[in-house]
Amino acid sequence: MQPVVNAHRIGIVDMGSGSARLVVYEYVRDAWFRLTDEIREGVRLGEGFAASGKLSEGAIERGLDALKLYTDYASATGLGKLLVIATSAVREAANRRAFLDKLNGFNLEFIVLSGEEEAQYGALAVANSFSVSDAWVMDLGGGSAQLSRLEARRFAYGEAYPLGYVRMSEQFLRHTRTTDGEVRDLERFVRTLIGQRLGAVRRDGLPLIAMGGTIRNLTKAVQKAENYPLDMLHGYLLKRDRLEALVERLLELPAAERSRISGIHADRADAILGGALVYRTVLREADLPGVWISGQGVREGAFYRQFLAARTGFLLGDVRAFSVQNLFAHYPQERAHTEHVKFLSKRIFNLLEPLHGYGQPEAQLLEAAATLHDIGMAVNYFDHHKHSAYLILSGQMPGFTHREHVLIALLTQYHRKGDPKLGAYKTILEADDDLRLTRLAACLRLAEYLERSRAGRVKDLEADIGHDAVTLRLIADLEPRVELWEAAKQSEIFKKAFGRELTLEAGTLRRGGAQDKRLSTPAGKTKRK
Amino acid sequence: MQPVVNAHRIGIVDMGSGSARLVVYEYVRDAWFRLTDEIREGVRLGEGFAASGKLSEGAIERGLDALKLYTDYASATGLGKLLVIATSAVREAANRRAFLDKLNGFNLEFIVLSGEEEAQYGALAVANSFSVSDAWVMDLGGGSAQLSRLEARRFAYGEAYPLGYVRMSEQFLRHTRTTDGEVRDLERFVRTLIGQRLGAVRRDGLPLIAMGGTIRNLTKAVQKAENYPLDMLHGYLLKRDRLEALVERLLELPAAERSRISGIHADRADAILGGALVYRTVLREADLPGVWISGQGVREGAFYRQFLAARTGFLLGDVRAFSVQNLFAHYPQERAHTEHVKFLSKRIFNLLEPLHGYGQPEAQLLEAAATLHDIGMAVNYFDHHKHSAYLILSGQMPGFTHREHVLIALLTQYHRKGDPKLGAYKTILEADDDLRLTRLAACLRLAEYLERSRAGRVKDLEADIGHDAVTLRLIADLEPRVELWEAAKQSEIFKKAFGRELTLEAGTLRRGGAQDKRLSTPAGKTKRK
Repeated sequence: MQPVVNAHRIGIVDMGSGSARLVVYEYVRDAWFRLTDEIREGVRLGEGFAASGKLSEGAIERGLDALKLYTDYASATGLGKLLVIATSAVREAANRRAFLDKLNGFNLEFIVLSGEEEAQYGALAVANSFSVSDAWVMDLGGGSAQLSRLEARRFAYGEAYPLGYVRMSEQFLRHTRTTDGEVRDLERFVRTLIGQRLGAVRRDGLPLIAMGGTIRNLTKAVQKAENYPLDMLHGYLLKRDRLEALVERLLELPAAERSRISGIHADRADAILGGALVYRTVLREADLPGVWISGQGVREGAFYRQFLAARTGFLLGDVRAFSVQNLFAHYPQERAHTEHVKFLSKRIFNLLEPLHGYGQPEAQLLEAAATLHDIGMAVNYFDHHKHSAYLILSGQMPGFTHREHVLIALLTQYHRKGDPKLGAYKTILEADDDLRLTRLAACLRLAEYLERSRAGRVKDLEADIGHDAVTLRLIADLEPRVELWEAAKQSEIFKKAFGRELTLEAGTLRRGGAQDKRLSTPAGKTKRK
Repeated sequence: MQPVVNAHRIGIVDMGSGSARLVVYEYVRDAWFRLTDEIREGVRLGEGFAASGKLSEGAIERGLDALKLYTDYASATGLGKLLVIATSAVREAANRRAFLDKLNGFNLEFIVLSGEEEAQYGALAVANSFSVSDAWVMDLGGGSAQLSRLEARRFAYGEAYPLGYVRMSEQFLRHTRTTDGEVRDLERFVRTLIGQRLGAVRRDGLPLIAMGGTIRNLTKAVQKAENYPLDMLHGYLLKRDRLEALVERLLELPAAERSRISGIHADRADAILGGALVYRTVLREADLPGVWISGQGVREGAFYRQFLAARTGFLLGDVRAFSVQNLFAHYPQERAHTEHVKFLSKRIFNLLEPLHGYGQPEAQLLEAAATLHDIGMAVNYFDHHKHSAYLILSGQMPGFTHREHVLIALLTQYHRKGDPKLGAYKTILEADDDLRLTRLAACLRLAEYLERSRAGRVKDLEADIGHDAVTLRLIADLEPRVELWEAAKQSEIFKKAFGRELTLEAGTLRRGGAQDKRLSTPAGKTKRK
């Protein structure tokens, strides 16, 4: 395999109040990107801030240590100047100058975001990773929480509030065992600060999308508790009753023991409750059934400003299409074969529309699966259908729901053989997805075998749909023997999917009429008319 | 990702008596290869051969159909001339000419192997895919079975016998339910034909390595029955008692129902018993405890003659080393980082030798794991340690035992974090592999974090091994901050592996003495001396 050429690399540091994190992206602008490294340090820059309004000596030292670590890494790996995004702890600290002065000599582009800018960056991450035009976005970090409104995929308005999880815990939750009074005081504080805005959230009925380490960690604990079959946060709907139940469990435990709850990180355990109570209050006041989780946030917002520098508003044209293309770009591919399988599967899907009645949602799933069906070849030819599914489920597919993500993976898994089954994912799929999977897999599999020689020999298709049988006519220059032979073996899944026998015929490029020629297919596999 | 350039492609067809198979390899001569496509057709070229000594009309037609299919595929995909290897059915057929004449106009290089050549090709596959110098090799196909002797990795002698599974079944097993008399006749035939040779096998006590569809299929059924935790045939030891038990089950069922046994292919079910009885007789007569399975055979032998054309005897220099390099070559890599992790892990392993006492076998496992530890980055940075293990277990590692293959995968899985566990693979590992895994993982993990900046900053290491603690001194030009910081977090696994505390120090390139400087490490993670 050849190394990737012409790709850029950028290192972005998110200097939060709770933790610092360096992420490194490799990318070709406007084409594809991938995360290649990440170093997280729990620096607690905001520790003690609630009381003093200043960065403590220890916090400054830990912050400098982390930045030395990152610049050391950057110089060793030839990353060049790091982009550092600092948020509320630095922004609000009375002694911010003292900290910033110590950074002279570090090879950094150090940006302190205003509260509104921080909200904008988060909103940008949502606009580029959810299939949503209008929503509320909440980003709760260590020091502050931003709440903003996305309109037609643009940041409309939003600001930062002093509601970060470290700050809330320090300010309100002083007892080892949190008391009812402490909870009431915290809740009253939240309502006073953003109650009006939460009223607006309740009235307009839009989804709330949340980001940041607190909600990610809470979600992880909820997923563990319910044995969620995917190891995936982005795009998950955290239901309010699940959050309520988790908060109850956190309240029952003394701070030091909260990491006993499976999924809760040890270094967040003593402070996470402050953030969890803010979220509970938000969901109650806005009367929301749940909150959607974003795995992307301010860091990704900063990255998109580089990656999509040439685009108005730094916005991807189509989030789902980009997700598919970005995953596709990770693996070496026969592009022409993939395009032809896409074309043929779509054609089959459309020709059989009278039999399935599916629309745009299914067409999109099929197209994504057709694009990604062969990526498992990068692992091994043997079982490459299974490897494709593994790679898809191990990758990110922002813009698709988890159900859709799973269906795309399962479609690739069954693109060559096997009886399509929902398996372990049943719980997150819909009741009729069983049939949907079988039908779409049948379309994809036929397309794959009609493109068996990987040379685009079958130019087009025609179909006659009868009461008991469907005849597919293959339009090709030459007699497509391999394709007829292999596609004819798929009569079983076709019958299961569409309740009809499948007959294949070879036609010529001049359509219809006497030039058509019925070709033999392997005995016993396909019923002849 | 860039497509692979400068790679050759070759299509090889194995025209066996039972089935025909086209395999396509992509390769750079003497460097790496991968299988990229495979089309199998159950042509039964040898059907009816036992009675007539001729290829039947139907067999000829099916053979021609398959070859048309393959040449069609080859021309569509730009593969060029296919290399066709024909074996016993064509070799022995009285009407061979009639068949070969019909191939005029096909773009083929058609080679009919003699019995000895067929045995040579099989032996070559074994020599390049097992860590063995001397062995017996048996290749049982549809028409014939080859038995040969490998000496110092070379084919010493061997020939073909009319013991193929299709032939045996047609000749002896004529009843739907096989009778005791039929079994006795078949066994007597085998003993008469190769009894003397099997006596030699018994006397010299060398392993028997078997290849071909029959033994692969029998093995698959045995693995299913015992819930074998790996989906891997090559390198598996099929024990005699397991084979005996499977043969008993086959004998109990009428021919048409044998595919009810999980793992037995439907299109082999009616004829597989003939081959199974030959193997049973061989193991009994040679008094062997079992037979090693080769997933490679004549096709691979033919391929190695191309791939290793420049090498004496078409032999790889080192089978294991090649397996590792071949898998490594599949994925984009930072070669310098990998080399440095290999170097450091080996150094740590050697420095700690007084504590573990391991030798060459463990050093080899560690080196393989160090080479492959990051291949999972090709999937996703997140969880790339798990992806590395997945890719290794999804790939082939000829020359390593299954136990070794699994240990290498597990070492990569634990190269960053987690408490090393044998998990589902316990049954194929040894009793003390638990500790072995933890110790080797500790070496690899330390090396990985001592190379955290991926820039080769830690040039070398020194160790002081004390009663309670081990001090590792990092020799570097510059203070390797990232490396010290990250490696120091690994004290927990180190303690578990070696029963001692870990202390890290930075030294300079001038060793020892006053220039050494103890660096701080993250609080609470490493005990200071």
